[in-house]
Amino acid sequence: MDITVAVDAMGGDHGTHVTVPAVLRFLEQYPHVNVVLVGLPDAIDAELRAHKAQLGPRLRVHAASEVVMMDESPQSAMKNKKDSSMRVAINLVKSGEAHACVSAGNTGALMATARFVLKTIDGIERPAIAKMMPSLKGSETCVLDLGANVDCTPLQLVQFAVMGSSLVAAVKGKEAPAIGLLNIGSEDIKGTDTIKQTADLLRASRMNFVGNVEGNDLYSGVVDVIVTDGFTGNVALKTSEGIAKMMERFLREEFTRNIFTKALAMAAWPVLSRFKKRVDPRRFNGASLVGLKGIVVKSHGGADRMAFYWALKQAADEAGAGVTQRIAEQVQQQLADLAVPPAAAADQ
Amino acid sequence: MDITVAVDAMGGDHGTHVTVPAVLRFLEQYPHVNVVLVGLPDAIDAELRAHKAQLGPRLRVHAASEVVMMDESPQSAMKNKKDSSMRVAINLVKSGEAHACVSAGNTGALMATARFVLKTIDGIERPAIAKMMPSLKGSETCVLDLGANVDCTPLQLVQFAVMGSSLVAAVKGKEAPAIGLLNIGSEDIKGTDTIKQTADLLRASRMNFVGNVEGNDLYSGVVDVIVTDGFTGNVALKTSEGIAKMMERFLREEFTRNIFTKALAMAAWPVLSRFKKRVDPRRFNGASLVGLKGIVVKSHGGADRMAFYWALKQAADEAGAGVTQRIAEQVQQQLADLAVPPAAAADQ
Repeated sequence: MDITVAVDAMGGDHGTHVTVPAVLRFLEQYPHVNVVLVGLPDAIDAELRAHKAQLGPRLRVHAASEVVMMDESPQSAMKNKKDSSMRVAINLVKSGEAHACVSAGNTGALMATARFVLKTIDGIERPAIAKMMPSLKGSETCVLDLGANVDCTPLQLVQFAVMGSSLVAAVKGKEAPAIGLLNIGSEDIKGTDTIKQTADLLRASRMNFVGNVEGNDLYSGVVDVIVTDGFTGNVALKTSEGIAKMMERFLREEFTRNIFTKALAMAAWPVLSRFKKRVDPRRFNGASLVGLKGIVVKSHGGADRMAFYWALKQAADEAGAGVTQRIAEQVQQQLADLAVPPAAAADQ
Repeated sequence: MDITVAVDAMGGDHGTHVTVPAVLRFLEQYPHVNVVLVGLPDAIDAELRAHKAQLGPRLRVHAASEVVMMDESPQSAMKNKKDSSMRVAINLVKSGEAHACVSAGNTGALMATARFVLKTIDGIERPAIAKMMPSLKGSETCVLDLGANVDCTPLQLVQFAVMGSSLVAAVKGKEAPAIGLLNIGSEDIKGTDTIKQTADLLRASRMNFVGNVEGNDLYSGVVDVIVTDGFTGNVALKTSEGIAKMMERFLREEFTRNIFTKALAMAAWPVLSRFKKRVDPRRFNGASLVGLKGIVVKSHGGADRMAFYWALKQAADEAGAGVTQRIAEQVQQQLADLAVPPAAAADQ
């Protein structure tokens, strides 16, 4: 099946200067994917001309007259920017003209607009932000929620488990992915009441729930999916970015300390660059807004061309794997299976 | 002033094999500090003999007939091990025979016993676990709570701010340390109701509250103290450990890939070891149980001699700086200053 991805060409810190070249490279690598660039036609045309690129059946432009600012409130974006590149890209998913959309625009506006336009899948109360993280073992772990929902009920966390495991099952072709619940100890008695109730519900489900995991398990590869509320997940993600940046800085400082260490750095360049590539966050760019009736991928706002390329790949992979349909099916199966009326579960 | 530190010689994964040699090295480096080794006399004596060490006025042994196991519940430790090395070490702080104590025993038992024996400082509802973290700038950031309290009220979080800033002010000699509140965005509108109410209280205080910070600021050095609940703090700490371990593993794998990369690693050894030293978690071993009427430092259970040495230093530094007294004074000043009855603040 040919896949069409709608791209918010204006989103992110660098707009078309990043999105257009990333799309051009992506189209070369993925011959079964088509792209619709959404945004201000003049800006898009200028960037296409700069790269001597031609429009055609695989690359089209869809005009949108407005741009959501990076610091604009979701309310303002929703109310005042009905013809924004972000919103029109999502509209193309809603109308079926695209199978997925990608935006590097601001997260709050993207989530609010996507939720308003696409609506949530039946049985899902709140969409979540999910992201693949690298692990010690070389495998990847899908972590959600990463910031859409600061307070979550046990049933909402169980819904996140369904969404995360469906995403991994579809994209990675892994049946019954192992699910962990992020806690501050592996014992059942640890954690908040919400966490304990969530663990009870997950144990009662037919999903492959392996129990509590701890912060270090975001990178241990011990499970395929880690479920947490958006507050904890967001702090964990940004803490990771903080310490990774510090470690890279320290490594660079030691290798640039004097002329001898600089010579060593040059000699060790192939080794250091392989290391850098393995921990390069750009390869993991592209967070999925899951639980919506359509595929929406959020790129980091500061993404460069390579990073945006990976977000495009994430969107195309999800569309190819039919993630939305998979989640919808699993929600019906798994949540019916719990045999707990949602309200009772939430109030337990 | 001479400082006496009581050491739970039996605690941790390695007991006297780590604690005794670490103490011997510590006594050499810190001539103004005395140590009381608390535990089973036979085990301590054997280790002292192995190191040809002599007892004397600076190194004494205080017998305790029991040992709290690493997986023992706090309830069991409190009820059944009244003569444990952990408890007796804390008793010595209570009686004034020691100015601080250090244990690598299990955290739950240590916190419960310390709270029972020493009691909390007037005005502090719950003790917290605080730890210094390294930063990009070379400065250190005190983060609390790291796991003692999974649910916290706004007033308890404000108390953590008082404790953290008092600790930094006393030990680092820094007046009015900058305090940040861990959140998922720097804007005031972000976060849970608890976080927003806490920010209001901190803004109303005379403390140097700079506003919300994010996960990456644990390592950015932008503030001196970061306040969070024990659930989020614990996840952030362990997530950091997880990604640091992964990055170190990847770096080692790249440098041991073949005979050429191994030769490079040997050539670059001084550079790599300086890097390793800067990110060595052993240098940051020693979490402070703050808010108690006495100084208690928790070493990582798996600490080796060098790591345990740093925990001893943390305890001696806190005792020398009069941290307990400082916190007690600041609690009275800062919390009275809020002019909010504690119950009203908690219920806001």
